[in-house]
Formats: sequence, C-alpha cells, structure tokens
Amino acid sequence: MKFLEPAELIEFQNWRYATKKFDPARKISAPVWEALEAALALTPSAYGLQPWQFFVVADSELKSALRTHSWDQPQVTDCSHHVVFATRNDLDEAFVDRHIARIVEVRGVTPEAMGFYKDMIASDLLSGPRSKWVREWAARQAYIALGNFMTSAALLGVDTCPMEGMDPEKYDEILSLPAKGFRSVVACSAGYRSKDDQYAALPKVRFSKADLIQTL
Amino acid sequence: MKFLEPAELIEFQNWRYATKKFDPARKISAPVWEALEAALALTPSAYGLQPWQFFVVADSELKSALRTHSWDQPQVTDCSHHVVFATRNDLDEAFVDRHIARIVEVRGVTPEAMGFYKDMIASDLLSGPRSKWVREWAARQAYIALGNFMTSAALLGVDTCPMEGMDPEKYDEILSLPAKGFRSVVACSAGYRSKDDQYAALPKVRFSKADLIQTL
Repeated sequence: MKFLEPAELIEFQNWRYATKKFDPARKISAPVWEALEAALALTPSAYGLQPWQFFVVADSELKSALRTHSWDQPQVTDCSHHVVFATRNDLDEAFVDRHIARIVEVRGVTPEAMGFYKDMIASDLLSGPRSKWVREWAARQAYIALGNFMTSAALLGVDTCPMEGMDPEKYDEILSLPAKGFRSVVACSAGYRSKDDQYAALPKVRFSKADLIQTL
Repeated sequence: MKFLEPAELIEFQNWRYATKKFDPARKISAPVWEALEAALALTPSAYGLQPWQFFVVADSELKSALRTHSWDQPQVTDCSHHVVFATRNDLDEAFVDRHIARIVEVRGVTPEAMGFYKDMIASDLLSGPRSKWVREWAARQAYIALGNFMTSAALLGVDTCPMEGMDPEKYDEILSLPAKGFRSVVACSAGYRSKDDQYAALPKVRFSKADLIQTL
C-alpha cells in the first residue's frame, strides 16, 4: 500500500467544500461512481451491522420531486447523483440473524461460534439501554457513511453537498421507502462544481484549533 | 490537484478495518497526527457550526481509566491516540453568534450580511423542529467527524477502532467534560495494527450490493 503524505490529506480536506452550484452538464463516470458505491458499502458500522441502505437518485423527475422538499436547493437537480441515506425499519432479531448468517457465509465460521457475538449485539441494541433509541442509533451510523462518502468523493475529485435541509417524510413518500422497509435520514448531492460557484473560493470558516481539539 | 484513481480509493477502504489489537510500541508521528487533527477540524458540519470538540487522550493513566469504562477493550490503552468525540452543551443563540462572528472574521463580510444566515440557523436549530432534538442533532454531526476521521487515518496508513462500547457519562466524569461544556458521544482509538491481530486478515462482511445500494 502506498499511503498519502500528511500534506496531501490536508490538501484534499481543503479542496472539499459544500458545493452550492453544480455543473449540470458534468456527470460522474461509471468507474468513479462504482468506487464511491464501494466506499459507501465498505463504510464501518457498529458490529458491522450496516443498518442502512443508500438510495442513489439519478432520474431527473425524481430529483425534481425531491428538490421541492429540499428547501428548493438547486444542487438536488443540478448534481450528477443525489444520494439518500436511509436506515432500516427492521432493527430486530431477524435482522441481527441475517447479519450473523452473512458472517457465517463470508468467513466460513459456524453459527455456534457466533452465538456470543449475537448475544452481545442483542443485549446492547435489542434489549439493552440502546434499544430505547435504536432508530437514532441507526441514524448516527448513517452519518458515518455520510462522512466517509464526502471524504471519499473528494479523493476522486468529486464534489458533494451534504443536505439536512430535506424533509425525510416527503423523501420517504416520493421514494416509496416505507414499502421498502427504510426511512431517510439525510442526503448528499454529488457531482462537479460549477466554474462560477463563488463558494468554492471562500476561505473555510473553522473555530481556532484550541476551540476544537484538546489534548489530554 | 492530483486525485486518486477509483481502484486506489477501494484499496484504502479495504485496508481499513476495526483494529482489535494495536501495537503498543508504535506511536503516530507528530506530522501524521497533525494532519489527522487538521482533518478533524476540517470535517463538514451543518451550517458549518462545528458543534463539537475532539479530546485526544494520549496520557496512559487517563487511557487506563477510560478503558475501564470501554468494556475493558485493550485498544484504548494499546493505541497511540484515543480520540473522544464530544458535543457542545451550549447549543444556543450565543454559540450561533460566535459562529457568525467567526464567519465575519474569516471572510471579511459584515455582520449585517450574515443576518439572514443567522436567522436561518436559529429558525431551524434553536426554535424550529430540530430544536427539540438538538443534542441528538449534534451527536449526528459528531459521527460525520468519526467517518471522516477513520477514512483520513486509513489514507495515512493509520489504523483505527471506532468505539461505541464506552460509557459516555463515565468518560465525561474522567475527562471533566461537563466543566468544559461538552459531553462525549463516541470514541475512536488510532494507532498501528499489531502484526498478530487476526482480524486484519479476515474477509470483510458486507451485505450484497443489492441489499445496500439501490439506484432510482
């Protein structure tokens, strides 16, 4: 593996910004998009549970319908791919069983060997303290994917605009998510910045390092 | 800017795994750690509000105390840097004002020009529907930072182990976070994998792509 130099990482982090104006003519190529889908799928999650699904909206009519419920932000229709981060509704024992079955399948272990792990997950998420807010727990996981996605996109020169300014219930309705067993939590437009997006040139606003990081 | 090839991104994503056994002898060098701190600070957040602080625990006594409240996971003490992701307690108008003042300072705009933006933030987070769950909103933001941090670390060849298996109240107590105005939400150990961490070689378990991504 050839890793990046520290300065390269900082350069990518600075290159990324919340794109306000996408170039509607530029679409993300298939190989680049496939890598971003792989990055989404490889996002880490607690217990590896992946309590999510990512809905990629490329259809322009659907994008228009979603834009109406995204504070009318033009990024939704001008971007190349609009990603909706959704969490599963079935955060239950059957779902944990599916995950365990998948571990058994991929790693060739016995189901019995995974019993302890299953009990650990269940006693945390299904019957433990986190069970009281398991939907919110899943939403937090989706934000790991959002963070990973934006950074991954920047590495490939793809611009993004994360979007909490969207109406999850309307998104669910438009994308028929309840019937599919999901609910939307956040979205992110991806594509290429327009040459005249004035936000691209603005200096980044961050609190001072002392306000953000403390070493103990 | 020289961007990565799609295959390189996938390689980094596959290289990363939740490290169970760190090499306690290997520490992250200052330049590498500085870049990771920069990545944390440059994490995107809604409205650019940065409702967080990152507490970097390098002190071994503190790490031992935290390990006790992290399901006794050895990663906490064996890692190089243990990062605690905390959210601000003062998610109020004064904090929004501080953010606006910082924009004015960094971008050289007038406070008047930012009035609309301030009202937009306030009507969402301080008095709008999200005000009812603003602490949870902030926790979600912290998970963007967690996602960005893990990906950024992998790019530099730094291993991580995200950790929800920690007791936020005990962490807060040990790190005196209430007095500092913060509360912990999640942690992440960073360092270098031990050569005999058997988890490094296990195939990644993910649901099928069809189960994770749907194009509409």
